[in-house]
Amino acid sequence: MWYDTPMISSFLEPRQDQSFQELLELLRFPSVSTDPGHKNDLERCAAWVLARLEAAGLEARLFPTPGHPVVYAEKIVADTLPTVLVYGHYDVQPPDPVDLWRHAPFDPTVEGEYVVARGASDDKGQFFSLVLGIEAYLATRDTPGVNVKVLLEGEEEVGSPNLLPFVKKEKDRLACDVVVIADSSQFARDIPAITYGLKGLCYLELVVRAASRDLHSGSYGGGVPNAANALTRMMAACQGPFGKIAIPGFYDDVLELEPWEREAFAKLPFDDEKFRAELGLSELYGEDGYTTLERKWGRPTLDINGLHSGFTGEGAKTVLPCEARAKFSMRLVPNQDPETIGALVRAFLEEITPPGVTVEVLDHHGAKPVIVPRDGKPVQAAIKAYTTGFGREPVFVREGGSIPVVNTFQEELGAQSLLTGLGLPDDNLHAPNERFRVKDFHRGSVTMAAFLDELARIS
Amino acid sequence: MWYDTPMISSFLEPRQDQSFQELLELLRFPSVSTDPGHKNDLERCAAWVLARLEAAGLEARLFPTPGHPVVYAEKIVADTLPTVLVYGHYDVQPPDPVDLWRHAPFDPTVEGEYVVARGASDDKGQFFSLVLGIEAYLATRDTPGVNVKVLLEGEEEVGSPNLLPFVKKEKDRLACDVVVIADSSQFARDIPAITYGLKGLCYLELVVRAASRDLHSGSYGGGVPNAANALTRMMAACQGPFGKIAIPGFYDDVLELEPWEREAFAKLPFDDEKFRAELGLSELYGEDGYTTLERKWGRPTLDINGLHSGFTGEGAKTVLPCEARAKFSMRLVPNQDPETIGALVRAFLEEITPPGVTVEVLDHHGAKPVIVPRDGKPVQAAIKAYTTGFGREPVFVREGGSIPVVNTFQEELGAQSLLTGLGLPDDNLHAPNERFRVKDFHRGSVTMAAFLDELARIS
Repeated sequence: MWYDTPMISSFLEPRQDQSFQELLELLRFPSVSTDPGHKNDLERCAAWVLARLEAAGLEARLFPTPGHPVVYAEKIVADTLPTVLVYGHYDVQPPDPVDLWRHAPFDPTVEGEYVVARGASDDKGQFFSLVLGIEAYLATRDTPGVNVKVLLEGEEEVGSPNLLPFVKKEKDRLACDVVVIADSSQFARDIPAITYGLKGLCYLELVVRAASRDLHSGSYGGGVPNAANALTRMMAACQGPFGKIAIPGFYDDVLELEPWEREAFAKLPFDDEKFRAELGLSELYGEDGYTTLERKWGRPTLDINGLHSGFTGEGAKTVLPCEARAKFSMRLVPNQDPETIGALVRAFLEEITPPGVTVEVLDHHGAKPVIVPRDGKPVQAAIKAYTTGFGREPVFVREGGSIPVVNTFQEELGAQSLLTGLGLPDDNLHAPNERFRVKDFHRGSVTMAAFLDELARIS
Repeated sequence: MWYDTPMISSFLEPRQDQSFQELLELLRFPSVSTDPGHKNDLERCAAWVLARLEAAGLEARLFPTPGHPVVYAEKIVADTLPTVLVYGHYDVQPPDPVDLWRHAPFDPTVEGEYVVARGASDDKGQFFSLVLGIEAYLATRDTPGVNVKVLLEGEEEVGSPNLLPFVKKEKDRLACDVVVIADSSQFARDIPAITYGLKGLCYLELVVRAASRDLHSGSYGGGVPNAANALTRMMAACQGPFGKIAIPGFYDDVLELEPWEREAFAKLPFDDEKFRAELGLSELYGEDGYTTLERKWGRPTLDINGLHSGFTGEGAKTVLPCEARAKFSMRLVPNQDPETIGALVRAFLEEITPPGVTVEVLDHHGAKPVIVPRDGKPVQAAIKAYTTGFGREPVFVREGGSIPVVNTFQEELGAQSLLTGLGLPDDNLHAPNERFRVKDFHRGSVTMAAFLDELARIS
């Protein structure tokens, strides 16, 4: 399936050693965004990336932010052509605990199939792989058939505080048809995946208040409402039997999984028993009528994330808590809207508030669910590209989490994101001895070059 | 209603000034049991009390314990006579915060109707009032018609660690028909009360466990059980509608309130609206069909005392908690048994455990409920005695709490306790400026003398 084009055989393949040496250079910058002591390292890293993007045939510039700079580059061929925006980040997690690393975290070391270094997989190895693919495509086409933009931020590991303002401000500059993000992983070793759906989120906190102070349960018990009793009843009322959610209207906007999705998930190598055993669970439990992957990826959830009330120390204290709190969040699926769901939850909680207590519902955060149409040109191009780069079609998966940057691009640019992770599930992200498989680094470049080529062809 | 007997008019009344001076002496000992630096003060105080009991006509001795000594005294007249045991404690709470006192805490000072000092009401003033009553009775009767025993411990304020072993060991010595305890308060100013019922307690902790570690709700939500979800459902299932408890069999052994009790409670000056407002509650809430006092004193409860699970800090964390805990306790009424109730709860929780989680139930502590028959001789004598001492019949009340020493006497000696508090609800117990009303100090002595006299007469 490996189609031999000059882009690959004459450009990428002969340069593999050189590209890998460049990756090592990039990995040597200790660009730890959370540590002010590394501010200069981030700037040096950004400058290196900038220069490399220029060398790849793009017009690049730095955009300062109140934090670390954004590196932006573009190759605009013609307004009429489709535009691809590649997103990534050049900052990394702190390497702590440093003494658990087998080598210094910023001294990249090859171990078997892998290069081991902080940032190898998250995200330097991945975005640089895509940049090399872009370079190959641009270098080997007289007239490229797509416009390419590259946006690399330096604050992803600290929550991207300046990305949204930047995207809002530079909306026109960043305009694109599709965003390609390689900041996640394959479904499994040698099983590349396209993540075409993300769950949304509605995260709330229920605060139940009773008396103005904690009371002694001997003196007051029975005569006064108890905030913790009320809270448990309310949170239980939100949960229906068989893993369902009992909030009226909650399922109204849920897009049911389509037959092709259920078939695709069923074919994935996912072992319930292994999953159960690895988590130390006595048995798996979720919504009746769905498989584990369907539950995780395609069905909305309501999970309590934290409970706090009254006395929680060692032993016993006979107190009637005046306050009880439950943090809880709902993972949403298309087409549920976090604001609509929040309103339904508030209305229901108000309706079921027991006598004698007052209730406050705090909003933490929300995100809309995302789904990318499978029959669009970007997905069709990606299928072909993976077939070229990895020798097989990618599998189609969803994620249970939400990725804020995807929502940012969706909402600000109206652009869908293709999540095409090159890493592996055991890359030790955010942990000691982070690694990236060298073979996938090279296959990623081929895939990216093929993606641009194919998208140009079918557009 | 003040019946003039030599016991009162010739003995107690002429000695009032002297008795009060003696009370001041007793209050000057800084017998703070929790502070090892006061060990010597406790010993000096115990010696003073011992001498005073001897002077009152009793045979007294000290019993050392691993902590502070027990002072014991008795006047045995004849085996065939009823025996009264008076229980009290000569240790006091620490006076902290000392700078909130208007006078030095161990320099007793008269302020209007009150004497202000640490220990004035809790418990030196109260037990010494009874001792003076005993003295008057013994001094004015050629042949007393009751045996009297006095047990004063020095560790009540540190949880009486050595009282149970002492009572167990000295079971024969302490044998009695009734225990008189003056370590609480009147129902309200000038409304003396006999507390004839105490609730029992069954304090448990539910621990629900799911996976072997906390999980990310984005990666796992929906596919795995959530310990906090399960716990809220289980705790809610224990609660029925209308303030009832839904654990099967829970009410089987409940002694319903008798008509006379409901009438007596209804006559007490208790204002629901004032109670509600003082606690800052929007409304009162409890078991349907019962008044506030009936709920507090005569109906069993199930109250959650503490909840803890997952993330409880500021903000939001999308975690699926692997463990959730609820401390909860049931206040029991006669004839509920804490062990039986504990077994019912465990069986129910086991039955309703949702799939995928495991459950552990921890035992914290328990106490049996107590009720003293109103038609028994001690209660009948107490009614007469109060009428003598306070010029009115006492009201009959229960308590929602349990008092461990009452259970100790019930279980070890088979003796019922009469709780005949002389203090007032606003005596500032355990707080700065603790006080005791001087008038009640004297009325207590009269009441005690009359109680012994009346019990002897009707026995």
